[in-house]
Amino acid sequence: MSDSFKVALAGLGTVGGGVAKLLTEQRDVLLKRCGRPIELIAAADKNQARFDELGLPSSVGRFDDAREMAEKTSADVIIELIGGANGIAYDICLTALKRGKGFITANKAMIAHHGNDLAALAEEKGVFFGYEAAVAGGIPIIKSLREGLIGNKISEIYGILNGTCNYILTVMRETGKPFDVVLAEAQKLGYAEADPSFDIDGIDTAHKTCILGALAFGMPISLDMMSIEGIRFISDADIAFAEELGFRIKLLGVGRRYENGVSLNVYPCMIPQTAEIAHVDGVFNAVITEGDFVGHSMFVGRGAGERPTASAVVADIADAVMHRGSPVLSVANKEVKQLPVVPLSEREGEYYVRFDVCDRSGVVADISRILGDENVSIASMLQRERAAGDFVPLIMTFHKSKESSVLSALKKIEHLECVVNKPCMIRIERL
Amino acid sequence: MSDSFKVALAGLGTVGGGVAKLLTEQRDVLLKRCGRPIELIAAADKNQARFDELGLPSSVGRFDDAREMAEKTSADVIIELIGGANGIAYDICLTALKRGKGFITANKAMIAHHGNDLAALAEEKGVFFGYEAAVAGGIPIIKSLREGLIGNKISEIYGILNGTCNYILTVMRETGKPFDVVLAEAQKLGYAEADPSFDIDGIDTAHKTCILGALAFGMPISLDMMSIEGIRFISDADIAFAEELGFRIKLLGVGRRYENGVSLNVYPCMIPQTAEIAHVDGVFNAVITEGDFVGHSMFVGRGAGERPTASAVVADIADAVMHRGSPVLSVANKEVKQLPVVPLSEREGEYYVRFDVCDRSGVVADISRILGDENVSIASMLQRERAAGDFVPLIMTFHKSKESSVLSALKKIEHLECVVNKPCMIRIERL
Repeated sequence: MSDSFKVALAGLGTVGGGVAKLLTEQRDVLLKRCGRPIELIAAADKNQARFDELGLPSSVGRFDDAREMAEKTSADVIIELIGGANGIAYDICLTALKRGKGFITANKAMIAHHGNDLAALAEEKGVFFGYEAAVAGGIPIIKSLREGLIGNKISEIYGILNGTCNYILTVMRETGKPFDVVLAEAQKLGYAEADPSFDIDGIDTAHKTCILGALAFGMPISLDMMSIEGIRFISDADIAFAEELGFRIKLLGVGRRYENGVSLNVYPCMIPQTAEIAHVDGVFNAVITEGDFVGHSMFVGRGAGERPTASAVVADIADAVMHRGSPVLSVANKEVKQLPVVPLSEREGEYYVRFDVCDRSGVVADISRILGDENVSIASMLQRERAAGDFVPLIMTFHKSKESSVLSALKKIEHLECVVNKPCMIRIERL
Repeated sequence: MSDSFKVALAGLGTVGGGVAKLLTEQRDVLLKRCGRPIELIAAADKNQARFDELGLPSSVGRFDDAREMAEKTSADVIIELIGGANGIAYDICLTALKRGKGFITANKAMIAHHGNDLAALAEEKGVFFGYEAAVAGGIPIIKSLREGLIGNKISEIYGILNGTCNYILTVMRETGKPFDVVLAEAQKLGYAEADPSFDIDGIDTAHKTCILGALAFGMPISLDMMSIEGIRFISDADIAFAEELGFRIKLLGVGRRYENGVSLNVYPCMIPQTAEIAHVDGVFNAVITEGDFVGHSMFVGRGAGERPTASAVVADIADAVMHRGSPVLSVANKEVKQLPVVPLSEREGEYYVRFDVCDRSGVVADISRILGDENVSIASMLQRERAAGDFVPLIMTFHKSKESSVLSALKKIEHLECVVNKPCMIRIERL
């Protein structure tokens, strides 16, 4: 195979194994589509048993040290599927780029933390740099943003970007079970990690959101500018009230371009049940974009897992084979411009709030007065008859209001004697 | 602008005007993203007033004859936005390719009828050939199939591909009005043509479906293999019953790969309301694919109109500028293989049927007996009390059955004395 395109694979874990399988199973179809065979010439994994488990032929050079492989391999492209923002992954990325090799990764943490510098280095070296698999798994969203929607200024981008959170929220809705119970079940099923914080506190979604935001708005990748809320505080009561009010709760990465800057944040949202994205359930991911020419677009697919992620990695390999290149961050590095950050407190939008209150007369009047003082106007209110317990939930939605006013009102309301817990606020997004 | 990429535009109608506007309005952002200016150096339209209406500068060469422009222009790429399977559009396509110029079109009829030959010619001449705008308007589905999902064998592809039909079906559901009334209103609003047949009889959807089928399955574009049903026979009663049974009616292009071949057809479907695509309403388009690695994916966006279609045309221009090429039909022409056609009569699936019957005892028994004889088993039945009129609708859904058996049973049932009209059959697809 003298004209083969040669790849080296660092990491034979779940995704690395998927890539090895895909390259084998789809060898014929990839050859027809790319016009050249893709040949796995080397792989690296500390667990040498993986080579045999995956049935890799003896022609695949075996390394236990990925750094050594990156330094020695004659591959055209090095594929990093080890993970982690720093450490080995980062080292072999630098080695690959400095050696003038193409580089492909599924590593969102590394791109979120070092993407700007790596993009600069890749551009300087003139090498292929692919990270389609880093955001929304099998959805070709990086390609769609950089190429398919290239004629558009993107004003808004929303994403369901973490399958664990979406799975938990979906099961909570379907079963009525509380967060802790569903999380524990998800952990047993392997849908959530033993330490779930990275997923359920929104960090993973933030990594992906800041990458999408950079591509959509032509700015550097910036985790620091983001406000990040996870789903720990979502109760089964909120899920049920959402349903009753015609909403679904989804954890979204939200990017918006304003006249005076951009905002990029992660928070759970109430989304109307009539929106398509409200029906993206379980481990699926979705990205919605608003472009000035194309209008509203949505992309849905599996966000993680061996095979969907391998699909995205191999799309990058094919681009490298076919010499289909794009600027790493959608524009040349000298054109990447930091934009002013509009903080989340400037958000003008609708809100859902659950107050846990004593069932005593005057509570609604007290709360309403404080809201009125802050110019927050109530759109709807819902209170059930008292159940067993010390308090009743009082649900309100607010008309379009400024977030800083809502927060200021909620702070005052929290201190009312009759308000038992911190009010639970969920932003409403009409997608 | 010595290093500019030069384009010539044939047709300054709605979409051509959109492309001219996009190239002007987004000049700066396109330059940042492509690294080279894109320059409109010539345009052709019989209506010379369009040049001034669109404010085209004097640097744009004015032609009233698109054929002449195609023969003379020094542009790198000729963009055809005139339409029609033959005639001028086809002529200038041949001229462009023979002259070694890149060619970009939004013309699904021409691709559906001549795509195989044009792909061969483009490959022979080694020129860029783009038709992203020909299918599903602003959705980058050609790119996603050829590049983003390149690592997958696609087993199924479904599309809502005609905005006119989707708009009519959506309004019928929202208002309860009958087909004819909604069609007339759509015509008044400009959402349907004076002669609506091309849209509502499924021809337009078929053009797009056979293009998607070719890309998904690696076979030639073949309109002839398709069975095509439109939406004329969908009654307001069917829309209402669909809703009651938990379905929505959508006109779909449906492609399936079986072990023994492929099927590619157009028909209205009942889709569960829980499916995301059931919520793709109005003039929006959607494409669903099932890939063996990536699994289920969905792409949603505006399917037509000046600006979304211009977005797709310009994505092709950018690919040409950046030398991002793909085989026209996703594989090199010598690899394009006709696959055996599995006729629609072989379909194994669920069905909805509305019988208009006299309200007389024994009717259900007669119908059930015929269905049983054909091994078609009833999944659910619905009959309302008799309203004013000579007949009552009797609704049945069938468990998974072979289409030929269903059709054979319906033919016999149609001849029962108590069955007033031809039974209305709508396939159920669980996406």
